Amino acid sequence: MARGSRPFVSLLTDFGLRDPSAAICKGVILGVCPQAQVIDISHEVGKFAIRDGALLLWCALPYLPVGVHVAVVDPGVGTGRRPIAVRVGRGDVLIGPDNGLLVPVLERLGGPVEARAVENRAYRLEPVSTSFHGRDIFSPAAGHVAAGAELESLGPPVDLDSLVALSFPEPRVEPGRLETQVIYVDTFGNLKLGAMGEELHAAFGPLANGTPLRVSAEGRAIELAWGSTFGDVSPGIPLLYEDSYGRLCLAVNQGSAAKQLRLAEDTRIRLEPISS
Amino acid sequence: MARGSRPFVSLLTDFGLRDPSAAICKGVILGVCPQAQVIDISHEVGKFAIRDGALLLWCALPYLPVGVHVAVVDPGVGTGRRPIAVRVGRGDVLIGPDNGLLVPVLERLGGPVEARAVENRAYRLEPVSTSFHGRDIFSPAAGHVAAGAELESLGPPVDLDSLVALSFPEPRVEPGRLETQVIYVDTFGNLKLGAMGEELHAAFGPLANGTPLRVSAEGRAIELAWGSTFGDVSPGIPLLYEDSYGRLCLAVNQGSAAKQLRLAEDTRIRLEPISS
Amino acid sequence: MARGSRPFVSLLTDFGLRDPSAAICKGVILGVCPQAQVIDISHEVGKFAIRDGALLLWCALPYLPVGVHVAVVDPGVGTGRRPIAVRVGRGDVLIGPDNGLLVPVLERLGGPVEARAVENRAYRLEPVSTSFHGRDIFSPAAGHVAAGAELESLGPPVDLDSLVALSFPEPRVEPGRLETQVIYVDTFGNLKLGAMGEELHAAFGPLANGTPLRVSAEGRAIELAWGSTFGDVSPGIPLLYEDSYGRLCLAVNQGSAAKQLRLAEDTRIRLEPISS
Repeated sequence: MARGSRPFVSLLTDFGLRDPSAAICKGVILGVCPQAQVIDISHEVGKFAIRDGALLLWCALPYLPVGVHVAVVDPGVGTGRRPIAVRVGRGDVLIGPDNGLLVPVLERLGGPVEARAVENRAYRLEPVSTSFHGRDIFSPAAGHVAAGAELESLGPPVDLDSLVALSFPEPRVEPGRLETQVIYVDTFGNLKLGAMGEELHAAFGPLANGTPLRVSAEGRAIELAWGSTFGDVSPGIPLLYEDSYGRLCLAVNQGSAAKQLRLAEDTRIRLEPISS
Repeated sequence: MARGSRPFVSLLTDFGLRDPSAAICKGVILGVCPQAQVIDISHEVGKFAIRDGALLLWCALPYLPVGVHVAVVDPGVGTGRRPIAVRVGRGDVLIGPDNGLLVPVLERLGGPVEARAVENRAYRLEPVSTSFHGRDIFSPAAGHVAAGAELESLGPPVDLDSLVALSFPEPRVEPGRLETQVIYVDTFGNLKLGAMGEELHAAFGPLANGTPLRVSAEGRAIELAWGSTFGDVSPGIPLLYEDSYGRLCLAVNQGSAAKQLRLAEDTRIRLEPISS
Repeated sequence: MARGSRPFVSLLTDFGLRDPSAAICKGVILGVCPQAQVIDISHEVGKFAIRDGALLLWCALPYLPVGVHVAVVDPGVGTGRRPIAVRVGRGDVLIGPDNGLLVPVLERLGGPVEARAVENRAYRLEPVSTSFHGRDIFSPAAGHVAAGAELESLGPPVDLDSLVALSFPEPRVEPGRLETQVIYVDTFGNLKLGAMGEELHAAFGPLANGTPLRVSAEGRAIELAWGSTFGDVSPGIPLLYEDSYGRLCLAVNQGSAAKQLRLAEDTRIRLEPISS
């Protein structure tokens, strides 16, 4: 798989930036493919938080160059879970554990085309450890694919239907009501919801900027406005907006919605227009 | 604007390292200009802390190669604030919001020479979102400039005098007295002041290492010594020194001045020699 | 010292990722050697924690490409401690303060071959500051070595026996008993011990997976099993395993051993098999 003069590789893990694990993965990739351009998506994914990692990939990969993407949020490392590589319609190859982490983004990259188990011992650091497959299995495989190895050289084919599934919680859309949940709290304290902007419009019809809405969560009701961006409300005022990925998001202009609204990941919320 | 075989691009934001936003900016830049060398100055600038971001640029850019520098601390994203690109005497191009963030460093890079509004739709990711101009406006523009686009291709000229101003708080210098304030607390807990070493000398004349000084702040008085480096005092002992950028700084050898002296950003302080 | 078309440079510091210091080092290196491939091992080493930094180098460098490695955890900056460069059998050059930081990894890279004091003023940013030798001494020297400068050009030879020593705490191995201490708590809360797996086997003989062990620390006794990986026990259950570097490590499957076992860096612990 020819990848040009500077093949692109991305890394996403829950390894944290204090420990050397992420750098070791990068070093292993560059040892195999010195011409690679390796960038970090995040190494601060919540520990073992497969869904968070999957969401970050869902956000990021469509904006990255076509390349090889290594993702490791892997509570099952050393157990029977499969190491996999998935090629997508856009041409990228995603490499990581078969635990759902890689799945949600696939459709955004043209859908899965082919998957392989990453088993070729020539592409591993032997002896493979029981606890650091990012170093011993995923990164060297990524380096070889970036350097031009064909996907089929990684190992036997994996039935695409056999991949461990993962999806973000589906919203419930009814006329005049949208039920969803918080799926991610970003570092600004913005609360990303399981529903997309188009689902709000399906429930409520077109909404003018400033339309008042009621957010019900944990027995509390919060009133806020629909806005197109933070600056549509004054600093410190909450709003619901469609984020830059098309996802519904609760925010506070120049503040933290998580703190101010006291809502956290997985909280179920109901959205309704306030009839005037 | 020819930028050699590996044009240099830097990124500074308040996006945080857990979220994928910084990586997305990098990916967008590399998508436009695959040969770029992109490095991160910081993505952990305090949220919406324009002055902090401006100070980090002021510290960093003079030591970086000439290149394109993208900076995004942008509480006004999606409002009327202008996206700008500024060329400086040294040859760099700074790209970011017109909110003062880019301004303090300009003189250290030879001064502003030309500014443009970043409006060319051919250099944007369309449709431009309301909340992520780092991805949709600033990064693609940076990629195009790094790849050789002329500054004038970005958009219409901007009067340099019209740029939103920002300056660090000016100290008050009198014979035998210097009044200033804490403008940044670094990750060691060192307290960076609004005054430079030369302003201390203007107030007090030449100071020998070990000269005792009184720091008055919040109704308290702290006695410490003027030192040339941390090791001039014992571990745990505070000192005032001139940091590696020429700035006055309160520190504790192998400790945190912020914790030990209980001083924070924006605290006003008065410095006086202790007459013996 | 010819280093190919993209000489490899790594950086490890305690500078933190919010401040611009690490980026400045990278910029200085790239200013001297634009073709370098610079990667970060960690900039979140505990402040002044020389032993932590030494351990991260010990973990990481054997997995990185041969190159120039800059490490700065440097409580003695500006004092008389020497800036040094050490060449090892594998061909790498390590650059940093002579405070023990560089020492433990040397044997894992083929052992030290030659050391020099980094004193050549032509390879420094003059005037050298008293508090940021990472920028003014270590990084420019690294850039020059990466660009091909010979080690001897850096400064006068340093006797290898004169390097400041540092070693990880030695375990005490007796038949049926192993005494060691926690030397590092990683971001997962895994407790890295001063003893290696082979030392456990020297004390206890071969251990089957699941063998029960007693961990005594701070007057408390904890019972747990020897396992080959986290998944050998149920989520939330502690285990002792040999980590991917051959080091003994206390962990909790999908949890934090540091929190759950309430043990911290430097805690002394005793390991014994539980006779059944």
